Amino acid sequence: MVKYLTQEEATNIDVQLFNDYKFSVDQLMELAGLSCAHAIAKSYSKEQLSNKYIIVCCGPGNNGGDGLVCARHLKLFGYCTSVYYPKRTDKPLYHNLTHQCQEMNIPIIDQLPNEAEYDKYGLIVDALFGFSFKPPVRSNFVPVMDFMKRSKIPVISIDIPSGWDVEKGEPEEGGIKPEMLISLTAPKLCAKQFTGKYHYLGGRFVPPKLEEAYNLCLPEYQGTECCVLLKPKQQ
Amino acid sequence: MVKYLTQEEATNIDVQLFNDYKFSVDQLMELAGLSCAHAIAKSYSKEQLSNKYIIVCCGPGNNGGDGLVCARHLKLFGYCTSVYYPKRTDKPLYHNLTHQCQEMNIPIIDQLPNEAEYDKYGLIVDALFGFSFKPPVRSNFVPVMDFMKRSKIPVISIDIPSGWDVEKGEPEEGGIKPEMLISLTAPKLCAKQFTGKYHYLGGRFVPPKLEEAYNLCLPEYQGTECCVLLKPKQQ
Repeated sequence: MVKYLTQEEATNIDVQLFNDYKFSVDQLMELAGLSCAHAIAKSYSKEQLSNKYIIVCCGPGNNGGDGLVCARHLKLFGYCTSVYYPKRTDKPLYHNLTHQCQEMNIPIIDQLPNEAEYDKYGLIVDALFGFSFKPPVRSNFVPVMDFMKRSKIPVISIDIPSGWDVEKGEPEEGGIKPEMLISLTAPKLCAKQFTGKYHYLGGRFVPPKLEEAYNLCLPEYQGTECCVLLKPKQQ
Repeated sequence: MVKYLTQEEATNIDVQLFNDYKFSVDQLMELAGLSCAHAIAKSYSKEQLSNKYIIVCCGPGNNGGDGLVCARHLKLFGYCTSVYYPKRTDKPLYHNLTHQCQEMNIPIIDQLPNEAEYDKYGLIVDALFGFSFKPPVRSNFVPVMDFMKRSKIPVISIDIPSGWDVEKGEPEEGGIKPEMLISLTAPKLCAKQFTGKYHYLGGRFVPPKLEEAYNLCLPEYQGTECCVLLKPKQQ
């Protein structure tokens, strides 16, 4: 059985990947975002979305960076993709990832869609907060959280359903209910409470030595696949 | 018909990807090396190689970096992989890529295999020189070139068959004859002279705007595939 990580374990693994294994953020973010795009393409075909947009909502940290990478690969796969990125991080990597999206003709929208525009969108990718999130959600992210809750557009959460406690899961006052969750590296404890349709694991870059050190018991990735379906279980 | 690039065009596209499109070397090298590992896995199964090693021969530049990334992903796919990296580049990225291989338990060998050891190896990946190569091959790389020519182990060249002129192809005195060529971004002129079994294109990251600017006429990548077979043509 795959291990579900505490927040501290997730943080420690991340630190080790960078400090001990010497991966760069650029590298792992590229692989993580790519695996998210693969998982989404496996579950939602272009035909099914029939030219509706996938809106990728990006937060200020690494989860948002994964979202920007995911948006770029989805666009390369032929999906209509837009990005909502309300609080940009003033670091070269984030400027560059945003620039790459713009140069790929991915619209970066400043305003959330209003109700009349909801039917232009087929999916929401929730790349707001990742495994380092501590509640509560700050006020400037409340509108996008409300958009995800109210719009009825299926939500795909990257690593953590945003607003959920990384270990305890959905907040008591009610949180977003993603249709799909893509855990990265290894699932976090909150994923045990995920009741949506599809649960994927992505981020196929964990060195076996690190997997063993944390007893991750990762499921087997098939062939050259960069993601693996955890729920419903593959036959 | 896909365009075959001159050395100058290949250089200009590379410069634009970094300067205008703001990709980092880490990002594109990760995607390029990953696509090479995919192409290799598509053509040579683990069963077929039956525990023989894939030896990845890395040169001092970016082609060698692609090789190091490729070696790491091949290992994650379950292939027995080793690396020969005779002239290492003293830059953090190359130190880190090498370290990542070591931490994945990929042997970095200092000596080329001798004849008695040839049957331990099922494939050679030629990641020595890329599109910026100008002949002749420097003396310290002559032994590895000889190894690739003489060993009868099938050679897979990344981007350029090493020692070939990037535009004119195989040198008159006779060069390596790879069984597989993986062109990256777009094929270079020398690829027209490739007579081996498989020709792949990898590096699915070219923004459509850049593709148009150079009239690359890239073939269509299927679904979420990161490489596409150019020869023999897919049905």
